[in-house]
Amino acid sequence: MSTQPQQAPTAATVTARDVHEAATRLAGIAVRTPVLRAAPLDEHTGGQVLLKCENMQRTGSFKFRGACNAVARLSAEQLERGVIAFSSGNHALAVASAAAEAGSTAMLVMPADAPPAKFAAVRGLGAEVVTFDRYTEDRFALTARLATEHGLTPIPPYDHHDVIAGAGTSTAEFLDQAGQLDVLVIPLGGGGQLAGAGVVTAAADQGTRLIGVETAVGDKNRRSLRAGERVRIPVPRTIADGVTGEIPGELTFPLIRRHVHEVLVVHDDEIRAAMALLFGEMKLVVEPSGALAAAAVLAGRVHAPGGRVGVVLSGGNVDLPRLHGLLHPEPDVVSS
Amino acid sequence: MSTQPQQAPTAATVTARDVHEAATRLAGIAVRTPVLRAAPLDEHTGGQVLLKCENMQRTGSFKFRGACNAVARLSAEQLERGVIAFSSGNHALAVASAAAEAGSTAMLVMPADAPPAKFAAVRGLGAEVVTFDRYTEDRFALTARLATEHGLTPIPPYDHHDVIAGAGTSTAEFLDQAGQLDVLVIPLGGGGQLAGAGVVTAAADQGTRLIGVETAVGDKNRRSLRAGERVRIPVPRTIADGVTGEIPGELTFPLIRRHVHEVLVVHDDEIRAAMALLFGEMKLVVEPSGALAAAAVLAGRVHAPGGRVGVVLSGGNVDLPRLHGLLHPEPDVVSS
Repeated sequence: MSTQPQQAPTAATVTARDVHEAATRLAGIAVRTPVLRAAPLDEHTGGQVLLKCENMQRTGSFKFRGACNAVARLSAEQLERGVIAFSSGNHALAVASAAAEAGSTAMLVMPADAPPAKFAAVRGLGAEVVTFDRYTEDRFALTARLATEHGLTPIPPYDHHDVIAGAGTSTAEFLDQAGQLDVLVIPLGGGGQLAGAGVVTAAADQGTRLIGVETAVGDKNRRSLRAGERVRIPVPRTIADGVTGEIPGELTFPLIRRHVHEVLVVHDDEIRAAMALLFGEMKLVVEPSGALAAAAVLAGRVHAPGGRVGVVLSGGNVDLPRLHGLLHPEPDVVSS
Repeated sequence: MSTQPQQAPTAATVTARDVHEAATRLAGIAVRTPVLRAAPLDEHTGGQVLLKCENMQRTGSFKFRGACNAVARLSAEQLERGVIAFSSGNHALAVASAAAEAGSTAMLVMPADAPPAKFAAVRGLGAEVVTFDRYTEDRFALTARLATEHGLTPIPPYDHHDVIAGAGTSTAEFLDQAGQLDVLVIPLGGGGQLAGAGVVTAAADQGTRLIGVETAVGDKNRRSLRAGERVRIPVPRTIADGVTGEIPGELTFPLIRRHVHEVLVVHDDEIRAAMALLFGEMKLVVEPSGALAAAAVLAGRVHAPGGRVGVVLSGGNVDLPRLHGLLHPEPDVVSS
């Protein structure tokens, strides 16, 4: 679907200045991730495709930017008590690393069916892990209860002013590295990265068409934009385990509504095809959620004849056995 | 072992001017491959590690540079008749692509046990494939016979003036992108890339310590340097299928002897460890031969306290099933 950007103002929003201040805070801590030409994707757009490699960000995804910015703004007393977050994995890694970097401690509330490598990595960063069933339990309520009991400061995965501002730094960097982009395509889950991108592209005012990409089975943002309000969907079952939220954020949705030109959807097989191309042709490891934008491009849904197309690879946390299983599944075993 | 650079001149050598002219020929055709910071490798050197990503070169390895430079210097009549090459795979891809780029045709002589994906890729570029048994057949004699029979121009994988000059362009680019390097570590097989690097670093005269890395079971260059002459070894059995030659090149060996400070060796398990780190921490796909230099660094054999260490990732042509098999081998099946 196509949505014209809305001009209506919203309260307590994130500004380009907030993103700029976040970038200053992250300098020398977050990785200035590389931008790579992706010639194999050009033909699918009619233009020139550039990849922003947030899969090479510290902790393997853009999530480190938001978590680090949020933790950096806590008081000494808050840091002493520690932080808490829930996440399907990448935000957990990001918060664990950001807390350790700031000399604090982190408790992570993670879905019990997240990839095992993510538990190990979070614990390896010194964080405590609490698991929940994402199909039956309310992660918000659980996190709130634990925060109160232990005096921990919650670091939300996307719906937080400082997290959005931190996430926006990847887009600010991308424009600084690549110059003007005619189109910018970004994976879309809770919407933190896309909302931050909207703030940056609107302020840059270079005519960049901003596109978010979510899964076809988890199209909460597309549905919400059509409805004109935040719509709740059932937890989607998709290989893109990083974008399985049920409703757009309170803070992110108005920013997406205002600044994003279009939301596209992709199917799991299209995500697999993009991961395979990035592996085989670009020699890059990208996790399913991180490949959403590339999948929309590969599927021919992003048209930019003669233009410059920025594509964010937002994460790379997929271990080799899982990657192999996703792209070369075993034949079905027929039991007699 | 450590070898001081020799000052003795050799005949018919490659010069920095040859490399510069090759770079001009390759401009806009070869990829200016990215240089990435590799913080996870820093601690193993005491310095700062930078990766030159030739795995992202056209056809997936640095070999495209040499093949393209050599083909670009052929006459119209030679291009009309076509070219021939033997290779364990990457040079085959490079020659096939370079020939197609120049409007010529290619016949490739490839070992019968090369990874199947390499046959398919070469044929996909329009080249003809002839296979041989690399443990019993003389690939040189077979290639010479086919060249004579069909009037084809041989494009050797490394022992050729234009191939060495073309390969040297990766080092010229690396120094241009990264600035001065205290150490430059390069995978070593036939020696084309290392010889070209030696020409470039010697001309740049920035005090760069040049290190080649070969397999412990295929240490033909180390043995030859010790002996002071080219030594032939049995075909080595290693996972590094791109560096299984038996003897250093006639042209490459004198350049390596003159310009290279040290040749290190690594074992297959060390190559596997480097591939796993590059995959997991850097999100990069690197084939075994391409990971030799990174393996020496990860094994702690390259010391550069406070220095800047350049590491070439020379190729990325490993498909996902093979990568999975190398890094997550199935347990041995015990037959009763």
